Amino acid sequence: MLTAVSLGPGHESLLTPAARVALENAEVIVGYKGYMDLVPPELLQGKEIFSTGMMGEVERVNHAVDCAEQGRRTAVVCSGDAGIYAMAGLMLEALEARGLLDSVPFEVVPGVPAFNAAAALLGAPLMHDFCSISLSDLLTPWELIRKRVRLAAEGDFVICLYNPRSKRRSDHLAEALDLIAEHRDPQTPVGIVNRAWREGQKVHTCALEHVDSGLVDMQTMVLVGNSATRRVGGFLLTPRGYHTKYEVGSSL
Amino acid sequence: MLTAVSLGPGHESLLTPAARVALENAEVIVGYKGYMDLVPPELLQGKEIFSTGMMGEVERVNHAVDCAEQGRRTAVVCSGDAGIYAMAGLMLEALEARGLLDSVPFEVVPGVPAFNAAAALLGAPLMHDFCSISLSDLLTPWELIRKRVRLAAEGDFVICLYNPRSKRRSDHLAEALDLIAEHRDPQTPVGIVNRAWREGQKVHTCALEHVDSGLVDMQTMVLVGNSATRRVGGFLLTPRGYHTKYEVGSSL
Repeated sequence: MLTAVSLGPGHESLLTPAARVALENAEVIVGYKGYMDLVPPELLQGKEIFSTGMMGEVERVNHAVDCAEQGRRTAVVCSGDAGIYAMAGLMLEALEARGLLDSVPFEVVPGVPAFNAAAALLGAPLMHDFCSISLSDLLTPWELIRKRVRLAAEGDFVICLYNPRSKRRSDHLAEALDLIAEHRDPQTPVGIVNRAWREGQKVHTCALEHVDSGLVDMQTMVLVGNSATRRVGGFLLTPRGYHTKYEVGSSL
Repeated sequence: MLTAVSLGPGHESLLTPAARVALENAEVIVGYKGYMDLVPPELLQGKEIFSTGMMGEVERVNHAVDCAEQGRRTAVVCSGDAGIYAMAGLMLEALEARGLLDSVPFEVVPGVPAFNAAAALLGAPLMHDFCSISLSDLLTPWELIRKRVRLAAEGDFVICLYNPRSKRRSDHLAEALDLIAEHRDPQTPVGIVNRAWREGQKVHTCALEHVDSGLVDMQTMVLVGNSATRRVGGFLLTPRGYHTKYEVGSSL
């Protein structure tokens, strides 16, 4: 049995019971070193642990498939949701490449994605149609990423930017925000959330024209509002739709 | 205290501890009738419950704000994530309209969104950049929805379609899929998930050209793959990116 287990953003209060059970039942737990710290320690006790650093995804997945092929219950942990920029896909690719799709049962335990966790701290920035785009060009050509940002801006989607910055790519975020600004008011609210639901959490809101890239690293989620998003108190609010068929605030 | 509480897709194993605590602590629980069935019964005991039917959102939110204004700990429950096509925004709108942003503390407990829950059952259909679009034109002009579908298709996003069909709008899904087909191969894999993680769950995959609208109702999530998505065993797999910088399947 091979299971992709979503840990959620990192706080134990957002780890689902299903993820907990999957980890309790596992004999082998595999994951990126940084994510092992997000697993409650009691769930790691007595388990065989295989963890490696950044860029070790393929090694980890192949090891996990080796274990599952031997009939061991194997869990691969992912932060956020295992199906969003995470390991579920690579696990399926490995099962396919090694002809194990019929012999190794595979399942995915969904979790609270990073962008939702960030959005909740900002109030209600999503609410309506949205896009998620990763600014990492490690596996995707930068031109395609640019195209997606442009189209998402043109479509007035709320835009969630994953992997907004790394040491190697310090100017991608600025370039993406410039593309968005071609279709959106400079005052469009932006939410910048660092380490949502983890130690050191920081929540910041500003206007599109005033985004400070210095606040952003690879653990940051950047959410750009749509044309209707506004700042309300300390929150971001995207109304449900564009018609005004409803009226709030009239006390019953 | 006014809290938007995400119940996740509906199965208790995907209800987060944070949501459970928020409901335990609430004095008043407000929600759509259909969602009250998703709350574990012991969490409703001894609480004041206010639930109404479809289209009663504004009434529910205003009642919840009334209770919170009186100093009562009030939770509004939402299925999936409270910040995605749900109640968090309307709650903020009501607090704003009634001048209560400073006096009534507001928070959102994030949860497992419906589209993630559906995606997990399909394997790994998301993985990479994706869009979420609601086909409901109740609060959004159909022309804007069409535009978004077209742009999402052009940008080769994986596309999640919420509210794909209702009695009133039986042809919106077919129209949306036609728009997508202008940019995507007729063989593009599509996942159709009914009642994900609830009783009566059904998971179906097919090619874009063969989507059977008869399988789709308002409780269905439709996920359309991108140009790289393929069917693998009984699953949908979208690879992580477009470069092939990695090689899976070589046993270590």
